[in-house]
Amino acid sequence: MKDKFYYMKMALDLARKAGELGEVPIGAVIVKDGEVLSSAFNMRNQKGMATAHAEILAIEDACKKLGDWRLDGAEMYVSLEPCPMCAGAIVNARIKKVYFGAFEKKSGAVFSNFRLLFKGGLNHVTDAEGGILEKECSDLLKEFFLDKRKV
Amino acid sequence: MKDKFYYMKMALDLARKAGELGEVPIGAVIVKDGEVLSSAFNMRNQKGMATAHAEILAIEDACKKLGDWRLDGAEMYVSLEPCPMCAGAIVNARIKKVYFGAFEKKSGAVFSNFRLLFKGGLNHVTDAEGGILEKECSDLLKEFFLDKRKV
Repeated sequence: MKDKFYYMKMALDLARKAGELGEVPIGAVIVKDGEVLSSAFNMRNQKGMATAHAEILAIEDACKKLGDWRLDGAEMYVSLEPCPMCAGAIVNARIKKVYFGAFEKKSGAVFSNFRLLFKGGLNHVTDAEGGILEKECSDLLKEFFLDKRKV
Repeated sequence: MKDKFYYMKMALDLARKAGELGEVPIGAVIVKDGEVLSSAFNMRNQKGMATAHAEILAIEDACKKLGDWRLDGAEMYVSLEPCPMCAGAIVNARIKKVYFGAFEKKSGAVFSNFRLLFKGGLNHVTDAEGGILEKECSDLLKEFFLDKRKV
């Protein structure tokens, strides 16, 4: 069944690919009308690009596919709670709902340190649910940073 | 003299170009060590891209030029107070200081509705100054939306 766990597993697999390349392991999938519109993983170091987070790359690919900056009705599945840049992009792209895995206490901009999706003033409100496959998403990040310290 | 007004005038000229193309007139310039590293204007509609704000395009171009996601020591001049997405990108790119023109009460994420540059938790703090050539920057936007309503 293609439920939120199915798509979060897909985001997790993408996150693992990022990790194998030495990038912080974060993956994102955008789904619309039951179809995967785009998917991406963090490529900040490889691209040497401050904006190359998984969410931004997935949004840009989805916009290209639809030829529209509006991703109305689309949902995003991402393995880590988005940072302010990505949460802002999610709202700007008018994404309907974001499902994320692990919570990010410091830079998390959905529920944790900033609450960008719900505060009034922006032209769109994106719904959100956190903690989907939380342990798997969180463990993947912990192991990555543990391995980094060992090197 | 190449002071903050000089670079803000450059951002304003870019904003005007965006307006001529039917885009919300916003322009941005990134300066490092007294050299213009990149400049861009809002191209959201033309690119059909939710992330194609002036600030993001300028950051991406600057990263490409330096081959690095870190824009340490760089300053940004932008005609309107950045939205949450752009303010988040400015912090992620480790920009030193952002100078903006007009304040944006609703979506402004430096001083107005959100204060993303100063709140603890992120890996960098970007300094900011608003209100540079404020009237010119604000009038350009007002005229644009007034013309839109007449059509």
